[in-house]
Amino acid sequence: MARQQFASDNYAGACPQAMHWLGEANASGHEPAYGDDRWTQRSTDMLRQLFDIECDVYYVFNGTAANSLALASLCQSYHSVICSPVAHIETDECGGPEFFSNGSKLLVGENQSPAAQLGKLTPEAIHTLVTKRSDIHYPRPQVVSITQATEMGTVYSLDEVRAISWMAQKHNLRVHMDGARFANAVAHLGCSPADITWRAGVDVLCFGGTKNGLPVGEAVVFFDRKLSEDFAWRVKQAGQLASKMRFISAPWVGLLENDVWLHNARHANAMAQKLYTGMLSIAGVTTLHPPQANGVFAQLPPEAVAALQAKGWKFYQFIAGGGCRFMCAWDTAPESVEALLADMRAVMAG
Amino acid sequence: MARQQFASDNYAGACPQAMHWLGEANASGHEPAYGDDRWTQRSTDMLRQLFDIECDVYYVFNGTAANSLALASLCQSYHSVICSPVAHIETDECGGPEFFSNGSKLLVGENQSPAAQLGKLTPEAIHTLVTKRSDIHYPRPQVVSITQATEMGTVYSLDEVRAISWMAQKHNLRVHMDGARFANAVAHLGCSPADITWRAGVDVLCFGGTKNGLPVGEAVVFFDRKLSEDFAWRVKQAGQLASKMRFISAPWVGLLENDVWLHNARHANAMAQKLYTGMLSIAGVTTLHPPQANGVFAQLPPEAVAALQAKGWKFYQFIAGGGCRFMCAWDTAPESVEALLADMRAVMAG
Amino acid sequence: MARQQFASDNYAGACPQAMHWLGEANASGHEPAYGDDRWTQRSTDMLRQLFDIECDVYYVFNGTAANSLALASLCQSYHSVICSPVAHIETDECGGPEFFSNGSKLLVGENQSPAAQLGKLTPEAIHTLVTKRSDIHYPRPQVVSITQATEMGTVYSLDEVRAISWMAQKHNLRVHMDGARFANAVAHLGCSPADITWRAGVDVLCFGGTKNGLPVGEAVVFFDRKLSEDFAWRVKQAGQLASKMRFISAPWVGLLENDVWLHNARHANAMAQKLYTGMLSIAGVTTLHPPQANGVFAQLPPEAVAALQAKGWKFYQFIAGGGCRFMCAWDTAPESVEALLADMRAVMAG
Amino acid sequence: MARQQFASDNYAGACPQAMHWLGEANASGHEPAYGDDRWTQRSTDMLRQLFDIECDVYYVFNGTAANSLALASLCQSYHSVICSPVAHIETDECGGPEFFSNGSKLLVGENQSPAAQLGKLTPEAIHTLVTKRSDIHYPRPQVVSITQATEMGTVYSLDEVRAISWMAQKHNLRVHMDGARFANAVAHLGCSPADITWRAGVDVLCFGGTKNGLPVGEAVVFFDRKLSEDFAWRVKQAGQLASKMRFISAPWVGLLENDVWLHNARHANAMAQKLYTGMLSIAGVTTLHPPQANGVFAQLPPEAVAALQAKGWKFYQFIAGGGCRFMCAWDTAPESVEALLADMRAVMAG
Repeated sequence: MARQQFASDNYAGACPQAMHWLGEANASGHEPAYGDDRWTQRSTDMLRQLFDIECDVYYVFNGTAANSLALASLCQSYHSVICSPVAHIETDECGGPEFFSNGSKLLVGENQSPAAQLGKLTPEAIHTLVTKRSDIHYPRPQVVSITQATEMGTVYSLDEVRAISWMAQKHNLRVHMDGARFANAVAHLGCSPADITWRAGVDVLCFGGTKNGLPVGEAVVFFDRKLSEDFAWRVKQAGQLASKMRFISAPWVGLLENDVWLHNARHANAMAQKLYTGMLSIAGVTTLHPPQANGVFAQLPPEAVAALQAKGWKFYQFIAGGGCRFMCAWDTAPESVEALLADMRAVMAG
Repeated sequence: MARQQFASDNYAGACPQAMHWLGEANASGHEPAYGDDRWTQRSTDMLRQLFDIECDVYYVFNGTAANSLALASLCQSYHSVICSPVAHIETDECGGPEFFSNGSKLLVGENQSPAAQLGKLTPEAIHTLVTKRSDIHYPRPQVVSITQATEMGTVYSLDEVRAISWMAQKHNLRVHMDGARFANAVAHLGCSPADITWRAGVDVLCFGGTKNGLPVGEAVVFFDRKLSEDFAWRVKQAGQLASKMRFISAPWVGLLENDVWLHNARHANAMAQKLYTGMLSIAGVTTLHPPQANGVFAQLPPEAVAALQAKGWKFYQFIAGGGCRFMCAWDTAPESVEALLADMRAVMAG
Repeated sequence: MARQQFASDNYAGACPQAMHWLGEANASGHEPAYGDDRWTQRSTDMLRQLFDIECDVYYVFNGTAANSLALASLCQSYHSVICSPVAHIETDECGGPEFFSNGSKLLVGENQSPAAQLGKLTPEAIHTLVTKRSDIHYPRPQVVSITQATEMGTVYSLDEVRAISWMAQKHNLRVHMDGARFANAVAHLGCSPADITWRAGVDVLCFGGTKNGLPVGEAVVFFDRKLSEDFAWRVKQAGQLASKMRFISAPWVGLLENDVWLHNARHANAMAQKLYTGMLSIAGVTTLHPPQANGVFAQLPPEAVAALQAKGWKFYQFIAGGGCRFMCAWDTAPESVEALLADMRAVMAG
Repeated sequence: MARQQFASDNYAGACPQAMHWLGEANASGHEPAYGDDRWTQRSTDMLRQLFDIECDVYYVFNGTAANSLALASLCQSYHSVICSPVAHIETDECGGPEFFSNGSKLLVGENQSPAAQLGKLTPEAIHTLVTKRSDIHYPRPQVVSITQATEMGTVYSLDEVRAISWMAQKHNLRVHMDGARFANAVAHLGCSPADITWRAGVDVLCFGGTKNGLPVGEAVVFFDRKLSEDFAWRVKQAGQLASKMRFISAPWVGLLENDVWLHNARHANAMAQKLYTGMLSIAGVTTLHPPQANGVFAQLPPEAVAALQAKGWKFYQFIAGGGCRFMCAWDTAPESVEALLADMRAVMAG
């Protein structure tokens, strides 16, 4: 078994419950393709129950596709999407949103306010971008996209999401939630999934399954079903319709049954807390802000970064000069956290 | 266990060997994401060995994506792709190739010749389409795409592929092979995978894993590595890069080890032969041509089609009025074929 | 002055009235850009009066852009457009419609019926294409596009347009009219522009100005203004918004004032009639059908084609083997027709 | 005659020499379409002579199309283009570059250095953006785009362009020059067009004709002809091929003959100098930097802005709060500058 790393929560494998249902789905022999199977129906029903609404659910292969297709369904090529400067759609999808939408521009909010330092978009930033210009030489804002939990390991509160939605509605914008770590956000907030999404004004959620314990797959959840008209065709054309769909949807049954998704997220969050708490007591390590989800962000001396890497640890430097990100996964063991902390202490003492 | 059907070879589940390696890959704990894992390296090495060449391999999620991305890498939006009128890229991908290429037009060859009736493109059809026009109001042909095995259950011979490649090269066109059922074609031909691909002039092969026994995934194989420059970026942007890549690549190890892919294909082909032979002796059923791969095409009276459906059988009518397609899979049991034949006999006798 | 040719009606220059207003527009000195000028307002008002409805009008540079942008505004990338096999959007725009729509497929109607021989789409062909399939692997039909006058020099009657619109509405499709030679069609029909467009069910018309006597420019006319929402942004993004718009719109004033557009079209149609009548009496020349607009289609012996070309005449062969198209323009002189007929007679007698 | 304004240099009409040749081109009667005419040949020869190289020239309708098509020809959808934060392609083309390239992202250089305040991209900013990341989640930089003259009325020196090209070549990037006001830059530099373009490392120039005195039209000039392979097809598909091309190309003859383009630009530049000099002596008006091309940038009190507008003056506020831009055109009369200065003095004294 390989050493557990903190580079990304997608270094983890699939959780046992997901694997169990994947095996069950295979054991059933022949099943209709393209989603007309019992597992797709079942996981979809479970998601509808979870969100307490008759939502439309589409399973796609990964987060880039989920976000890009959702955004493309909300705007035309000459429209724009408002997001934070550190939004994954802006920084890490290689132009995926622009590709799927055939050119919709991403407009990034300012990056100096305290909220922005926490990776959050603010209603004020939305207002500024929308009202800045209204001429036809500027792509008309049509969607607000927020990441929950954020790329900086923080979580929008219910009031924050509501305030963003209120501003979005005021300007006739739709609200998209990139929920690659949606489970971690709900685990932190302790609220219902409905409260932090459609009841707070979210139109479409990309519910991340991969980082939460699936082998592969995300769910695009439309709370406003008028918005998902012909979305099945969009998914097909874009190469995101699994022929043997059950292998994508059945593992979702494993995540959703008995709140495994929530337990997985709570565990990852707890490991991040444990790591954070340990780092607080290491002189020379500066944590940026208390983690609310499953990632810890900290400033380490460059030599310490190099020394940790020399000891075999993998983690990302999100900014040059020692700004480090440590991600915990659904399966991160307390011992792994302790081992990392021990090496960090040794390195800093060294 | 559900009754085995003949609607599509993607009604079948995953073969045991694929599932075994999927489980093994999961058991290893943390692994680097996006393909920097040991299973991706291993399956890629196995594919290079299989094709006897240092090819470039990319794993994507499904056939629409594999074909569309491969074609998009071979042509610009103002170019065109020559294919047969029954090519999957033309009839069943909902405009996927046009979407990924941002507008490359598919030009379909004539559909009246004997070869066309067998689902095949001919060198003559290529020549006609290329020489018909050369003005800038017509998208310049740049690629020839052939499906091996074809959508009509036939297989291009080595000489046929060579003749197509010769014509393609004469007109400076690249050759793409849609190998959704490549394994079935090789099983029929009894040749080496290298002989029917790059040694016969094929530039890029989309090697289908799903219909051959994988849960999900296809491999795009570039024999001419100059053509795959920056293809990794293309895959990422298009939402086809799996973060937990090992779950896509490890099952390939299961297919490739001990020639499982070939055994699976041979079995499916044999079941199609068995079905075809059985149908030959049923009065009123007209088979169209002897199967070379894993599908049987036949003409049934519309009432017989309805009666079979009433008995719970699922299969596609590829043309209105009783033109039926029966597909066999890697796991199709002889008993399932016999049960279908028995019902067919009963219905026709009825 | 160069010899008048019959290759295309866009070999002609601009008519004096268009040039007059172009000069007037220039003489006014500084004018607001991007369409906020008096000429754009004036020509738009004139078009609204001409069509007897408060339509939305956008001026773009050429026919490929007009058609492509109009179609893109009516469908998404995973939708399809139904047209005739000889439609300009299918055969002569180098994949422009697919490019602007990011992949919408064109579905061509059958090409064997008498109507198809005249270049016309039929309600039956629409019905067949729409009802053929409804699965998500097939791009959902969303628009019907007809060319008025057709690419074969014929004109849809009011009843024919109404029947097509009726079928389109039955299947929830929008109706687009490629009116590159709309003026010639109206001249032939003797009806009002409103009768043959929105009163007959047309949603969007691309009204061709270039072939009718403008130096450059077409008008996209939306009769249903709900369909043109944000179309100005689409035009801008697609590089079709003229900064010095008056130079595109002012010449339209010249066309629309005193029915110059209609006179120009009538003249071109009359010249085609004169040419056709003359050709009827030349042995060995087989005219295909009586012209209704400004083009004559005929079959000539290949040697005659070569001989005419050797005499300096330019015209297109629309099919290999001597199928020739002779186009008349707003400025085609009777003497030019007579000169062509004289040479044709000499060549055939030779 | 309308009052001359300072809102944009495209408020001006066409210069007499352009109109003369437009009339001449029309007088010739029938001409082959799509660029096979004598005026297109002639203006292209003149451009080749002007740039002292056998360049490839394509005429398109406007600047958005010129820039977008040029950039799209230099990169694929998963590549990126480096430009300044105030680049027109980034701020004023409504996502045109992303649309034509099907998703190429624009990466903007930093905006705090002195050079950035002058609207210029620096070699250091290029280096930073290229070396920041090299992973596949980030669109690979492929092109550097600079605007000459810049959007802030400044001009890159020969050394500055060479330094940018050197850095671009070091990183294997192509260099695109947005020359919407190329003439004004050359007029300022007093160098040859060749020196500031291909001899300084520029691969493609979009030479702006409209702001320099044409009614409509820009020229895309490829100095490296390998880069323009099949560009004619790209232009056609994108709706940028004029059928009556002579009306776009003949006016270029007027601009190029007797260096009219240079005289027009010198005049506009001189008017900007006159305006700037006058503004220096008006208390309360803060000019930002001395103009090098044809625009003056200044800070005025908001009340003064309102008062000038109330007097009928039109000009853009490029930033909120009184940051104003005053553009001079090829036809701006000294009296118009004096009238504006007089009103400005009155308003500020007020």
